Amino acid sequence: MSAIARLIRPHSVAVIGASADPSKTSGRPVSFLQKHGFSGEIYPVNPKVERIGELACYPDIGALPRVPDVGIVLLGAERAHLAVRELSARGAAAAIVVASGYTETGEEGAKRQKQLLEAAGAMRILGPNTIGLVNLTDNIVLSASGALAMDHFPAGPIGLVSQSGGILGALLSRAAARGIGLSKLVSTSNEADLELSDFIEFLAADEATKVIALYVEAIRHPDRFREAVGKARRAGKPVVAFKIGRSEAGAKAAVSHTGALAGSDRMYDALFRQLGVIRAKTFEDLLDIPTALATGRKLGGTRVAILTSTGGAGTIVSDSLGVAGFETPAPDAGTAAELASLQSGSHANLDRNPVDLTLAGLHPDVLRGAIRALLASPTYDALTIIAGSSAVGSPALLADAVHDCLPMSDKPIIAYVSPHAPNVGAVLTARGVPAYTSAESCTSALTGLLLASQCSQGNAAAVAQAIEIGGVPPGSLDEAQAKALFARFGIPAVNERIVETSAEAEAAARELGGKVVLKILSGEITHKSDVGGVAVNLTADTIGARLTAMATEVETATDRRPHRFLVQEMISGGTELILGMHRDALGTAILLGMGGVTAELFKDTTMRLLPPQGGLGRDEALSMLHELITWPLLDGFRGRPKADVEALVSTIVAFSLMAAQLGQRLIEAEINPVFVLPVGQGVRAADGVVVLAPAGD
Amino acid sequence: MSAIARLIRPHSVAVIGASADPSKTSGRPVSFLQKHGFSGEIYPVNPKVERIGELACYPDIGALPRVPDVGIVLLGAERAHLAVRELSARGAAAAIVVASGYTETGEEGAKRQKQLLEAAGAMRILGPNTIGLVNLTDNIVLSASGALAMDHFPAGPIGLVSQSGGILGALLSRAAARGIGLSKLVSTSNEADLELSDFIEFLAADEATKVIALYVEAIRHPDRFREAVGKARRAGKPVVAFKIGRSEAGAKAAVSHTGALAGSDRMYDALFRQLGVIRAKTFEDLLDIPTALATGRKLGGTRVAILTSTGGAGTIVSDSLGVAGFETPAPDAGTAAELASLQSGSHANLDRNPVDLTLAGLHPDVLRGAIRALLASPTYDALTIIAGSSAVGSPALLADAVHDCLPMSDKPIIAYVSPHAPNVGAVLTARGVPAYTSAESCTSALTGLLLASQCSQGNAAAVAQAIEIGGVPPGSLDEAQAKALFARFGIPAVNERIVETSAEAEAAARELGGKVVLKILSGEITHKSDVGGVAVNLTADTIGARLTAMATEVETATDRRPHRFLVQEMISGGTELILGMHRDALGTAILLGMGGVTAELFKDTTMRLLPPQGGLGRDEALSMLHELITWPLLDGFRGRPKADVEALVSTIVAFSLMAAQLGQRLIEAEINPVFVLPVGQGVRAADGVVVLAPAGD
Repeated sequence: MSAIARLIRPHSVAVIGASADPSKTSGRPVSFLQKHGFSGEIYPVNPKVERIGELACYPDIGALPRVPDVGIVLLGAERAHLAVRELSARGAAAAIVVASGYTETGEEGAKRQKQLLEAAGAMRILGPNTIGLVNLTDNIVLSASGALAMDHFPAGPIGLVSQSGGILGALLSRAAARGIGLSKLVSTSNEADLELSDFIEFLAADEATKVIALYVEAIRHPDRFREAVGKARRAGKPVVAFKIGRSEAGAKAAVSHTGALAGSDRMYDALFRQLGVIRAKTFEDLLDIPTALATGRKLGGTRVAILTSTGGAGTIVSDSLGVAGFETPAPDAGTAAELASLQSGSHANLDRNPVDLTLAGLHPDVLRGAIRALLASPTYDALTIIAGSSAVGSPALLADAVHDCLPMSDKPIIAYVSPHAPNVGAVLTARGVPAYTSAESCTSALTGLLLASQCSQGNAAAVAQAIEIGGVPPGSLDEAQAKALFARFGIPAVNERIVETSAEAEAAARELGGKVVLKILSGEITHKSDVGGVAVNLTADTIGARLTAMATEVETATDRRPHRFLVQEMISGGTELILGMHRDALGTAILLGMGGVTAELFKDTTMRLLPPQGGLGRDEALSMLHELITWPLLDGFRGRPKADVEALVSTIVAFSLMAAQLGQRLIEAEINPVFVLPVGQGVRAADGVVVLAPAGD
Repeated sequence: MSAIARLIRPHSVAVIGASADPSKTSGRPVSFLQKHGFSGEIYPVNPKVERIGELACYPDIGALPRVPDVGIVLLGAERAHLAVRELSARGAAAAIVVASGYTETGEEGAKRQKQLLEAAGAMRILGPNTIGLVNLTDNIVLSASGALAMDHFPAGPIGLVSQSGGILGALLSRAAARGIGLSKLVSTSNEADLELSDFIEFLAADEATKVIALYVEAIRHPDRFREAVGKARRAGKPVVAFKIGRSEAGAKAAVSHTGALAGSDRMYDALFRQLGVIRAKTFEDLLDIPTALATGRKLGGTRVAILTSTGGAGTIVSDSLGVAGFETPAPDAGTAAELASLQSGSHANLDRNPVDLTLAGLHPDVLRGAIRALLASPTYDALTIIAGSSAVGSPALLADAVHDCLPMSDKPIIAYVSPHAPNVGAVLTARGVPAYTSAESCTSALTGLLLASQCSQGNAAAVAQAIEIGGVPPGSLDEAQAKALFARFGIPAVNERIVETSAEAEAAARELGGKVVLKILSGEITHKSDVGGVAVNLTADTIGARLTAMATEVETATDRRPHRFLVQEMISGGTELILGMHRDALGTAILLGMGGVTAELFKDTTMRLLPPQGGLGRDEALSMLHELITWPLLDGFRGRPKADVEALVSTIVAFSLMAAQLGQRLIEAEINPVFVLPVGQGVRAADGVVVLAPAGD
């Protein structure tokens, strides 16, 4: 059995620093193990105590009668490493270190954490600064969380890993109160050793787990995370993550809390998207979405029937669904007729959605009939049932009716509980109908189901022969060199000539024809316009004098007279975009943005992480374009000519293949702007920046 | 005493159609009146029953020993009007009609509702289709809502009016479970007679009410609503509204539910903004925000201290606050030192925010000290306290500590309860510390407090002398007429000439100089470019031929040869905007949007309702500009020249004064585009549409 399996399903547990007083934090683990029915051996260790209830208490780890699978270390940060060393020496699989005062507190703490890790040797460590773990499948509680003072926790198919300890208690108690069954909960906290991905991998193989939920502050090892999530996905288990740090304030708080380095939040979005991880937008979503996924039902579309016996609540749900892009179409004629046949003499109008049964909805037969009709209707992909005040007195009536109808359809069914009625929600959820108390939660749940059914078809990576780039120098390339590099990967640039004199410039302008642009050519000056190094709308007649004037102006600004210039054709009738890259701890991303000053104000950009092997596939590149709010500008909006999207997609793929091939050697790369011309006329890189590390790096 | 006062505080209540079985809906009102301690007379009316418990039951309304203040009519829609007529004849102040089957069901129902209203005569009606009302201040329950089966409802300062009956029960039970005290709850539903504004007015004068919360489906009488909200605001009572219909689906559902016509959701936004009504974004906000406002505390800024003993939860709150624009700065040096002095030997780092006391936060003295230090700190405008799992066992510890500190500061204090611990939240809320279970609720509460402290300074309306517009013809004006009308109100147009022949066009172009625009001039063809009626970039040399060609092209497209044309100067170097108006049931709004194809894709627009008297003030007009995402384009973004904002503001004000003066006579008006030139050069209306009703209308 692996060390992690022994940690999660131990046969014996030593509790180092156990107190005989169950009201103290150090008294809880033994008390909780017993209370929740641990069937293995419990070895309290405390030299000052002889017995804890029925249990013998041992003076030290050396005195234990057998090697424990797990040691829960309740000592402070000053002494925890001593217990860890002894546990390792005895051959324990893992130690759970509860104490805080490690990396999260600064340099001193980081030293202590290193010492702890050294003391562990081959033994695994969970924590430090962890609240431990709870294995609900097997009734094993290895935690000091006050939340475990509750009597009962429903076991179920949701496995949870949290990088925060306090959050584990919150999720555990919130889930229990709502009738949501969990399989395992683990708080990894400081992740001195065992981390998020270790437990994702465990849960991917765990039979009791069908859905994996993550509370993420920072992913320390993106490659391991990719691998672990891949295993979960291949095992058919959706992964849902709530990632803190949407705001700068939150990101900072997460850093100071765990001592981990936070990557850019948009990079997390890109990573989750690439791996098919569903991102929970709020903390509530982290239970709401997995609860819906745990039913195993698939959402095939966006059309939702809402069945209610109380008007207002149905409206609230309908409104929230509508804002998120769901549809709530009226029943088709057949379904409406079937609904009408269920009751007579009623004033209810059943040709609308929400379908309001009014008081007739309190009759179990009417309710069952309506549920059946809506589930069978070709008009709907899912059903949301509203529980009103009338359900408070008899929660089973509604729950039984819905539960009876579950087998007749694979469509998702969820419930919204309008009044305060926790019993109603818990009964419904426990019977397989996820129940929510806010319309936004209903919407999140259905959105999660939709994402889960979509993200199975990941886009394929582009793979290509390596391009020969032998002659490209390291360092900051000048514009012509940058465009030459792009060209090797198949990205065309504007027509241009390198010149040094006014006479050469005039000749070049004449050769290119029409209006031209004049720029200084330099690997050092990247912001050419800021120093007067760009002039547009020139002709062969005007360019000579302009070159002389530019040389003087740039010299004044930079103290260096430029000697080389570019003469470029001026592009008209194209749409400007920006294509670039961004790299941080999570990987390398390709960025695409609409150019021009207005789009810049709207920050109309999108990004994709490079896959581990190769560049972005064509479908992925096209999906980036579709994500731009200004996509219609490329697609014939208001009589504009359609842009050469095929060529643009090729350029994005080529740029990404360049980034993939150069890897860490590529420090910076951007084409700004790249012009997309009308269909059939291709694209042109009009300016570019490339910074390369030395080849040996 | 007014009829509404007698309805809400009756001395005697008749219950028509009362059942002796309290488990039936018709048995509830009598049972609830007794259960919740009504001290007046209860008169059940039912010819088939002799007694209901201790109470005598009367065969009909005529047999009642005294005139009841209120009659609760539990009969079906077919007979309710009969009881209403008798109640009116006896002199009752009001009838509460519970039955459904009126306007919400269609034409037949609308007739029944009309009949009901006629039967009422001088007596007021609440409903029909209402669940009634609850006066918690005086323990008077006039409702059949199943939610009232609960034993206890805390009375408090929040008055609630709902246009949905089911929602009343949901709010009542949700508030009670959270320890939120309410004063009065009224469900107005179909609003055959008494409506939203009647009860806002009542609550504005009600001593027990400090905050007014509204569940709105549609405002039927905007003028009455303005008046009523004005009274509430003058009484110092903030008004919070949850308005259904953010999505089309929700708007449709609300219509079919109440039979009322929904106005555009953005118009509601504008109306609420103008009146200083705080809009609740989610249904949860409708309790969350009033609970915070009920403390009477004012939020003076956006800097929030977060005090916690558990890391993760503080981070979640911090992240959500950050997304909403709040700041969570670290403690200043003095505060940090004070925090540090509270404990010794701890690993907690108290120079950060969230301030994490770790386990030391469980000591009441440490907790009190920390709360005091943070409240006294000049760095913070508000305090959010996190209750972790440790609070579950002893909710009073935290609640007492916070409660003790309340008198020392006017800063708002709210709490976030991390685990499932309804007792903790209820105790905190009941003691004056609004407690929430989601970070988004905390953020909504603080946002509501911020809005409440800001919206006291409403912007003044612009008032001006009426402009002489005698000669303006009715109907659809042509472009020149429209611009002439704008000019009378002080809005300058581009320089232009009306011409009929090529020769005149050439002369006009020469006179205007530079590049010119040629357009057909017609009151009938509004989309001139669609029929080939616009040409740009012309000169005196080219305009003659172009005019001839245009006349032919337009004739081909429309079967009518144009005879009149406009020759206009071509504006360059300006920024294009659109200025227009929109009118619906809620009033007349002035719309401002950035022009150009990209901004159009982003729908970068903003709107303001005209005040009841006059046009928009300059501050209001300027605030519209600041709301545009593309505002920087006018403000010198990226080296652009600053636009003539003063002139643009004058134009917006002038346009709004025109709309105000013309009132219902103005059917349509738009300047599209209006060019704003650099500072000192003003604005130019370059095209315009005006449609006027006949003067007599």
